[in-house]
Amino acid sequence: MTLTKPTLLIDPEQCQRNITAMTQKARQHGLIFRPHFKTHQSRKIGQWFRDRGIDKITVSSVDMARYFSQDGWQDITIAFPLNINEIPQIDQLAATINLHLTLLNEESVEALHRSLHHPVEIFIKIDTGSKRTGLPHQNVRDILHLKEKIEQTPQLHFKGLLAHPGHTYQANSREEILAIHRQTRDRMVALRDKIRKNNEPILLSVGDTPSNTLADEFEGIDEIRPGNFVFYDLQQYKLQVCSLSDIAVAVACPVVAKHEDQGRIVVFGGAVHLSKDTFMDGRPVYGYGVIMNENGWIIPEQKVIVSKVSQEHGILNVSPYMMKRVSIGDFLGILPAHSCLTANLMGSYWDHHQNRYDHMRG
Amino acid sequence: MTLTKPTLLIDPEQCQRNITAMTQKARQHGLIFRPHFKTHQSRKIGQWFRDRGIDKITVSSVDMARYFSQDGWQDITIAFPLNINEIPQIDQLAATINLHLTLLNEESVEALHRSLHHPVEIFIKIDTGSKRTGLPHQNVRDILHLKEKIEQTPQLHFKGLLAHPGHTYQANSREEILAIHRQTRDRMVALRDKIRKNNEPILLSVGDTPSNTLADEFEGIDEIRPGNFVFYDLQQYKLQVCSLSDIAVAVACPVVAKHEDQGRIVVFGGAVHLSKDTFMDGRPVYGYGVIMNENGWIIPEQKVIVSKVSQEHGILNVSPYMMKRVSIGDFLGILPAHSCLTANLMGSYWDHHQNRYDHMRG
Repeated sequence: MTLTKPTLLIDPEQCQRNITAMTQKARQHGLIFRPHFKTHQSRKIGQWFRDRGIDKITVSSVDMARYFSQDGWQDITIAFPLNINEIPQIDQLAATINLHLTLLNEESVEALHRSLHHPVEIFIKIDTGSKRTGLPHQNVRDILHLKEKIEQTPQLHFKGLLAHPGHTYQANSREEILAIHRQTRDRMVALRDKIRKNNEPILLSVGDTPSNTLADEFEGIDEIRPGNFVFYDLQQYKLQVCSLSDIAVAVACPVVAKHEDQGRIVVFGGAVHLSKDTFMDGRPVYGYGVIMNENGWIIPEQKVIVSKVSQEHGILNVSPYMMKRVSIGDFLGILPAHSCLTANLMGSYWDHHQNRYDHMRG
Repeated sequence: MTLTKPTLLIDPEQCQRNITAMTQKARQHGLIFRPHFKTHQSRKIGQWFRDRGIDKITVSSVDMARYFSQDGWQDITIAFPLNINEIPQIDQLAATINLHLTLLNEESVEALHRSLHHPVEIFIKIDTGSKRTGLPHQNVRDILHLKEKIEQTPQLHFKGLLAHPGHTYQANSREEILAIHRQTRDRMVALRDKIRKNNEPILLSVGDTPSNTLADEFEGIDEIRPGNFVFYDLQQYKLQVCSLSDIAVAVACPVVAKHEDQGRIVVFGGAVHLSKDTFMDGRPVYGYGVIMNENGWIIPEQKVIVSKVSQEHGILNVSPYMMKRVSIGDFLGILPAHSCLTANLMGSYWDHHQNRYDHMRG
């Protein structure tokens, strides 16, 4: 492939290593592995999961469920609170696949009761501390009440409880991530014990890349749903969840300006390529520059910081050595702060053998 | 139109009022008006400029130049430092339209010399203080040297100097924006005087929405290139450049969860719809919630703050009154922090008469 403009590169070997590692981990712990496909949004990358025996997936929208159902995925959880405006589209999907929805209010149950014709499985969304959304885990009475409403609705089958401890992303250490993980597990297990009748099966599903990567205590949990681990990124690196060499995507960006006296390189590659997401490395950082070669990219010894992005500009702070090494028109790679958003903006992937990988938005 | 999922709404009347106001302002000051189309990236919205007699435009990429050239635009400036890897694509464009490129280094001149067959007009990119990119305005010797290199290259015609005083976006008051504008103008005029030979024409092009909207002193300047004013947004509102009612786009988002005791509403509408861009309103804010009706949207008396976004979730902090007024499944509008990035993510626009407006990415 001749690169001409910003291009999302994937390292297929590294990506598959990430997939293999999480698959093996789930197996070792006897967990159902239902990877979240919102990070890659790619059928071709999805195939790497299928090759490893995975047949259950998670998505974050009805459109994404449709995209993967059309590629033969038959068991899909939409891990996002039901949007009742999309029940007709959900009904179409439920006619052909084993669909799981996520609910947290009675209005959703009533709307499904009115308009859904095909059966679906239902998870109740639980907030175990992230304070994004979900019924707070301590509101046992509300959760029981919602469970009963679900059980009274013929099209709905209550499957279990689902949590996303997204507050691991605010943790300051591995220990803090593990503490959040244990707390989430304990709260979910305790909640199940409180709402269970006659030893009925209630599936517990948790998932986020930081705790699913680091933790080793999953007793009581049935299913994990990590997504970001497929590529990892600098936010995960900063959380000490991955190393820089675990990151499986980089945006190749042409150098358009060098400002030697200011130690600044400008690339064609900005907010519409990387996203405006950041992580803290003393100050907000949008990415790290890496050196491209014919096999992918190499991480330089000294950090190259993407300190600013505007719509199409990326501003990199570089050492005098790096400044000399890079010429106008060269491509520099950028490891993204948040790979999910970068992939969503770029719309497709390329590997160094010039293979293209689809993305739902491409 | 029946809304089912996050949808970018446009208020066509407000958008056209914004276009009319800037067109009239440019005329009053005898300025060439070369609006930047990177904000809307829409042929249909571009037509509103054409209707007002505009025939020159600015874009930020070669792809965007192609998109608009195919819609009949014949005079286009790519106001982004030349990416020498795209010279073949540029050459194709230059064969059919009056194309202006932006340069700031000799490598670019040499690459064009080697590979370009069709003539183009050249602006030298000047940094008047924004410290993003461009030759620093005080480096007269380098600028003169580059100008001579351009003049010695047969395919290139030196047209003038181009600056984007993007540091207006960091200003803390209208006065500060106006001071940056005056400084930019003075520096550009002084630079022109220093490099001009024999009274040759050297066009001065400046542009950014904050100063182009607020300023009234353009003596010496030939051309303005604002872009964001077509929609405005909350960043401009915070800079006191526009009012909330000047904002011409909002993302309609379905309410999926209400957390009454926490004063929190969750909508389907997150970073993949709004972008992760923010402005400061005490803390980082991603948008303001507005109330939708059949004619568009109404700005509520009390601010509704989008305090957090994740990939698909938007978290709104609402008053008890607003909480009562909004039901699960209702649509809330969100005025974006940065409309350029929101439009780029959403990919098309809808008005309340159910007309669709294209976007290059749609």
